[in-house]
Amino acid sequence: MSITLDPFAVMNVVGLLAFAVAGSLKAADAGLDAFGVAVLGVITALGGGTTRDVLVNRPPASLATTWDMSVALVGVALAILLIRRTPEHVSVRDTPAFLVSDAVGLAAFAATGALVGAQAGLTPYGIVVLATVTAVGGGSLADLLIGRIPVVLREDFYATPALLGGIAFWVADAVGAPTGVPAGVCAGLVFATRMLALRYEWHLPEIRVEGRTGDS
Amino acid sequence: MSITLDPFAVMNVVGLLAFAVAGSLKAADAGLDAFGVAVLGVITALGGGTTRDVLVNRPPASLATTWDMSVALVGVALAILLIRRTPEHVSVRDTPAFLVSDAVGLAAFAATGALVGAQAGLTPYGIVVLATVTAVGGGSLADLLIGRIPVVLREDFYATPALLGGIAFWVADAVGAPTGVPAGVCAGLVFATRMLALRYEWHLPEIRVEGRTGDS
Amino acid sequence: MSITLDPFAVMNVVGLLAFAVAGSLKAADAGLDAFGVAVLGVITALGGGTTRDVLVNRPPASLATTWDMSVALVGVALAILLIRRTPEHVSVRDTPAFLVSDAVGLAAFAATGALVGAQAGLTPYGIVVLATVTAVGGGSLADLLIGRIPVVLREDFYATPALLGGIAFWVADAVGAPTGVPAGVCAGLVFATRMLALRYEWHLPEIRVEGRTGDS
Repeated sequence: MSITLDPFAVMNVVGLLAFAVAGSLKAADAGLDAFGVAVLGVITALGGGTTRDVLVNRPPASLATTWDMSVALVGVALAILLIRRTPEHVSVRDTPAFLVSDAVGLAAFAATGALVGAQAGLTPYGIVVLATVTAVGGGSLADLLIGRIPVVLREDFYATPALLGGIAFWVADAVGAPTGVPAGVCAGLVFATRMLALRYEWHLPEIRVEGRTGDS
Repeated sequence: MSITLDPFAVMNVVGLLAFAVAGSLKAADAGLDAFGVAVLGVITALGGGTTRDVLVNRPPASLATTWDMSVALVGVALAILLIRRTPEHVSVRDTPAFLVSDAVGLAAFAATGALVGAQAGLTPYGIVVLATVTAVGGGSLADLLIGRIPVVLREDFYATPALLGGIAFWVADAVGAPTGVPAGVCAGLVFATRMLALRYEWHLPEIRVEGRTGDS
Repeated sequence: MSITLDPFAVMNVVGLLAFAVAGSLKAADAGLDAFGVAVLGVITALGGGTTRDVLVNRPPASLATTWDMSVALVGVALAILLIRRTPEHVSVRDTPAFLVSDAVGLAAFAATGALVGAQAGLTPYGIVVLATVTAVGGGSLADLLIGRIPVVLREDFYATPALLGGIAFWVADAVGAPTGVPAGVCAGLVFATRMLALRYEWHLPEIRVEGRTGDS
C-alpha cells in the first residue's frame, strides 16, 4: 500500500520545497521583510492546496496536518540561506535543478487536485479546475500579494500542463483505469508537457486586440 | 413548477454570457494570452457564485454542475470571435445589447445570492452581502487579477443596485411574500435601478478628503 | 460565566471600531466613492474573521450574526464623520487613542483566531496561522482591493505580535492551562508586543538581496 503512495509523497515534498523557495525568492526580490518572505514562501507552497480544500468544503490539509507546513518552512529556510550565501542566487530559478523540481511540484499538485475533485464528486470541469487551481493557485496568490498580475495569466506555458493533466485524469478515470492510474497519468503528462514547454519554449498565443487604445 | 423557474434560468444564461464576454474582453485588453482570456471570462461569470457558495459552506455550483461552466465557456468563445472578427469590437461594451445583458446578469446573480443567503439562515446583513458579492464578486476578482482596483469600488452605480436588491429581497421575505416573490422583487429592482443609473448617469458621491496629500 | 467573556466582548467591539475606521480612512484616501469607503471599512473589520471561518468550514459569524456587522457599520459612520468634520483627521491614525484601539483589536482578533483554530482541532501551525490571519487578514484584503501590497508584508511589526500570540496560545493550551487562560495570555502578549513595537519602533529585518536588479 505504501508502495503505491511513495512516488507521490516524494513528488509532493520536492514540489513543496521548490514552490516555497520560489515564493521566498520572489518576496525578497520585491523587498519584503523577513515575515513577508516567510509568508510568501508558505503561501506559494500551500496556497493552491488550501484553496482546493476550501472549494470542496474540507478542512485545509495545510492547517490540519503538520507535514506540509513543516516542509514549506524548510523551503523558506533554504531560500534564506540561498539569498544570504549565494550572491549568484539570481540564477537559482533558472537552474535545471530548480526547474525540474518546480515541474515535479506542478505535476504532484495537479494530480492531488484532480484526485480531491474526483473524490468530492465534481464534474469533469470541476476536476480540471481543481487540478489547475491546486497547481498554480499558490504562486498566483503570492503574485497578487506583491501587486503583480499572476504570471500564469500572462505569458507562460505553465498552467496549461496542469489543465491538460486534469483532462487526462478525467479521461483515465472515465474509461475505468484502476485506482492510482489516473493520478499517475495526470502527473506524468503535466511533468512531460512542462519540461517540453521549457525545452522548446512553447507559448500560448496572445489574443491580440488590433487597433485598441488602452481604455478600461 | 418549471414555469416559476424559467425566467430565472433564462436570466442566468444571459448574465453568464454577458459576464463571460465582459471578462474576456477585459483580459484581451490587458494583453493576456489565450489561457488568461479564458480564465478571466470564466472567473467573471462564475467567481461571484463560487464565492457565495464558499461563504455558506456548500459545494460551488460552478464545480459541481456542468451547466454554468458550459455557458461561461460559450461566452468566452463568443468574445474571442468578437475580438477576431470585429475590429469595431471596441464598443461592444457600450452597445445597448451588452449593457442590457449585463444588467440582466446583475439582477439574476443578486437574486440567487439573496436566495442562497436566506436558505442558509443568514441575517438580513448576510442576505444583502451575499446578493452583492454574488453580483459583483466575479468582476471584482477579475479586476484584481489584472492589477486593477475593482471598478465597483471606485466610480460606478453598479454594486448599489445589487445591494438595494438584497434589501428588497429581505423586506419582501420579512413581510411574508410567497415563495419566489422576494427573488422577483429583487431582480426587478436591480435591473430597473441599473438601467436608470445608466440612462441618467447616476453616481455615488465621493467622500472627499480635503487638503490631504497622498500619504500612506 | 458572562464575567469570563466580558473583557473579550469589549475588546472585540473596540477592535471592530478601530479596524472599520482605519479601513474607511484608507478608502477615502484612495479616492473611493461612498460605497467603496463602506466596503473597505467593513472588510477591514470583518475580513479576517470571515477568512478564519471559511478556513475551518463554518458559517462566517460576519454573515450569520448581526452584532459584528452593526459595530463595523458604526465604525464606518464614525469615520465618515471624522472625514467630514475634522480637517485635521489626517493624523487620526497617529493618535494614541487610535493606536491603542487598533492594538486592542489586533489582540482580540488574534485570540479569537487561535481559539477557533484550537476548537477546530488544528495543529499548532494551524492555530498560529489562524491567529495571524484573523488579526491581519481584513486589513490585508483591504490593501489588496486598493492595489497595494499588504502593509504587514512590507515593513511593520504588526503581524508579528499576532503570530507570537498564536504561539503563546498554543503553549498555554499544551501545558494544560484552564479554559480562558490561553486566550488571555495570547491577547495580553499581542497587545504588549504591539505597544512596545510602536514605542520603540521595532522592525523586522529586510532580507536584503545584494547586487540584484529588479527582475521578476
